[in-house]
Amino acid sequence: MRTLITNIGELTTNTEAGVVRDAAVIIENERFAWVGSADDAPPDPAGYAEVDAEGRAVIPGFVDSHSHIVFGGDRATEFEARMAGEKYAAGGIRSTVAATRAATDDELRARLRGFIDEMRAQGTTTVEIKSGYGLDVETEKRLVRLAAEVTSEVTFLGAHVVPAEYAEDPDAYVDLVTGPMLDACAPHARWIDVFCETGAFTVAQSRRVLEAGVARGLAPRVHAGQLGPGDGVRMAVELGAASVDHGTYLSDDDVAALAASDTVLTLLPGVEFSTRQPYPDARRLIDAGVTVAIACDTNPGSSFTSSMPFCIAVAVRDMGMTPSEALWAATAGGAAALRRDDIGVIAPGARADLVLLDAPSHVHLSYRPGVPLVRAVWKDGVRV
Amino acid sequence: MRTLITNIGELTTNTEAGVVRDAAVIIENERFAWVGSADDAPPDPAGYAEVDAEGRAVIPGFVDSHSHIVFGGDRATEFEARMAGEKYAAGGIRSTVAATRAATDDELRARLRGFIDEMRAQGTTTVEIKSGYGLDVETEKRLVRLAAEVTSEVTFLGAHVVPAEYAEDPDAYVDLVTGPMLDACAPHARWIDVFCETGAFTVAQSRRVLEAGVARGLAPRVHAGQLGPGDGVRMAVELGAASVDHGTYLSDDDVAALAASDTVLTLLPGVEFSTRQPYPDARRLIDAGVTVAIACDTNPGSSFTSSMPFCIAVAVRDMGMTPSEALWAATAGGAAALRRDDIGVIAPGARADLVLLDAPSHVHLSYRPGVPLVRAVWKDGVRV
Ligand SMILES: [Zn+2]
Ligand SMILES: [Zn+2]
Repeated sequence: MRTLITNIGELTTNTEAGVVRDAAVIIENERFAWVGSADDAPPDPAGYAEVDAEGRAVIPGFVDSHSHIVFGGDRATEFEARMAGEKYAAGGIRSTVAATRAATDDELRARLRGFIDEMRAQGTTTVEIKSGYGLDVETEKRLVRLAAEVTSEVTFLGAHVVPAEYAEDPDAYVDLVTGPMLDACAPHARWIDVFCETGAFTVAQSRRVLEAGVARGLAPRVHAGQLGPGDGVRMAVELGAASVDHGTYLSDDDVAALAASDTVLTLLPGVEFSTRQPYPDARRLIDAGVTVAIACDTNPGSSFTSSMPFCIAVAVRDMGMTPSEALWAATAGGAAALRRDDIGVIAPGARADLVLLDAPSHVHLSYRPGVPLVRAVWKDGVRV
Repeated sequence: MRTLITNIGELTTNTEAGVVRDAAVIIENERFAWVGSADDAPPDPAGYAEVDAEGRAVIPGFVDSHSHIVFGGDRATEFEARMAGEKYAAGGIRSTVAATRAATDDELRARLRGFIDEMRAQGTTTVEIKSGYGLDVETEKRLVRLAAEVTSEVTFLGAHVVPAEYAEDPDAYVDLVTGPMLDACAPHARWIDVFCETGAFTVAQSRRVLEAGVARGLAPRVHAGQLGPGDGVRMAVELGAASVDHGTYLSDDDVAALAASDTVLTLLPGVEFSTRQPYPDARRLIDAGVTVAIACDTNPGSSFTSSMPFCIAVAVRDMGMTPSEALWAATAGGAAALRRDDIGVIAPGARADLVLLDAPSHVHLSYRPGVPLVRAVWKDGVRV
């Protein structure tokens, strides 16, 4: 069975074809078989399953390359206190660690699947998921295994924060992460990540974590530059990380290093929104030639949104991106941050992940902030 | 038939009862019959239709006291240009006027009903609707009649902007608005409004418009303080306006005048978000004793969101409101801005308008920005 989606008013392909008006796509099994002008769509002898987009816009499914959605509890009270004037402190992670350790697999799984459903309804067709709320061997292993049930983009983030029981000896925790914890988690993960920041892990510790992961076949990605400037970004570039995430604070040298590399800088607008941090300047990055992605960073502490359209709207309003740049960053940019070329584009051979918007143009994602504009979603060629 | 909604984890009443945990409400016909602790709910001999909230939060339906949703066309291209650096100019209204005049009643009605459905799905159970994209007698009359098909809160805003054909003689346009246009529109409206701002109508012209409306039995409300400071706010207070809307620029005298009056100041966070204007300081207003409402100002030029949850999240993030204050402003505050005491509260005798959230607390409206958290909506006692 082949599906023809036709009468697409505006099709964003993220390829050389650019934005096609009056377009159609043909899906065969889990991939796009054909993309072009509706008038040129080839007939199907067996008869297509046909969907009439009625002039609406179609975009690639969102690629959310940064999330932390396997956890227990929430931190609404902490959020409320912060909005009343308290400052964000990464230490709040520890309360989620306690709730996560206490939760059963079934509880974590139900929660995780709820987030996946919620994300998919908002147009996200690929999501990366990090561990990092276990911080002991058994729980971290549970988290990567649970994540692997719902995505192939699993990241081992044992080095999320130093747990309370190692507060006096962080290096001993790094020994654990790079030893028994990595042994337990690496078989279930694709990526190794570390929170390289004052109050979390030093550049030297972060390098140890990433190099240990790479030695086990994992590919590196890094949290850096969220709370202040540091050497984490250049270390990440040097190690060939697929992405550096946050980048709220970047020196000119950081920007130059990113621009000269194939490391993506992933912006997380929900974090600045939810912590009242200043927004990074995406314009500066794009103009310097840095490849920029947008992701939600869904987590109960610093960014509990799971809405890629919301993050696009904030990136346009507050980071100086154009609507087209923000859409690219949330689709093809996310794919680049995951070193994938089979997603984030609408092109023959790519996975048939797309979003039909309740709007004539993708511009409405920022023109109509907060409005649920996702009308239908296809993932791997199946309407979900 | 009576409906019992029980097992409500957190019920915000906006009454002296405050926030009730483990609550229940009973709906009879279109009103609340009983509100209290789930354990105390009286049995119904005839048997309730029962809804289990499963511990989720329930809030009053949103009262969106400011919208412009009868119009033709959109201005996505203008929005894109503004995000690329152009400044917002109220003159863009004229392009919507041309599209609105050209549209048939059926076209405008279909669009309007689409917005009503979209708003209701996001938890808005009462919406005020303004005319103002006709700017001639026939079209303004069409707009108020169409608005009256879907709400009792209809506002005649012939004085939205001076139309191109009166550019050389704005006072002649005020003669039209206060004469034949008012005659045609007053029978279909409850409110008279004017855009009192440099580039639109002077304070003297605004006063003429409002006084003419009041003489025809309409109650006044005013757009003022959006683009710069002026005397519009104090004029509105002096005339006993139910609400002054925007208030992006307010002098200390304006704030004092509002605080000493029963005129509400309605904040429109979508406008500052979508035009990159600075945000007004809600903290300053609340601390001074001003009654504050939040509304969407849904319109194709300066704020095309229709999402009250989005406006709440922005008000918390950028205007200094607490989550509780923002929720109050978007429900009871909107009711006050419409001089209504039968909506915006969950109390016996009030209209049974409520929202069941997909969250344990109303705090999640700002803690989870952009995420569609509205699980179910009751309006006038009926689940919609
Ligand atoms: Zn993160
Ligand atoms: Zn308005």
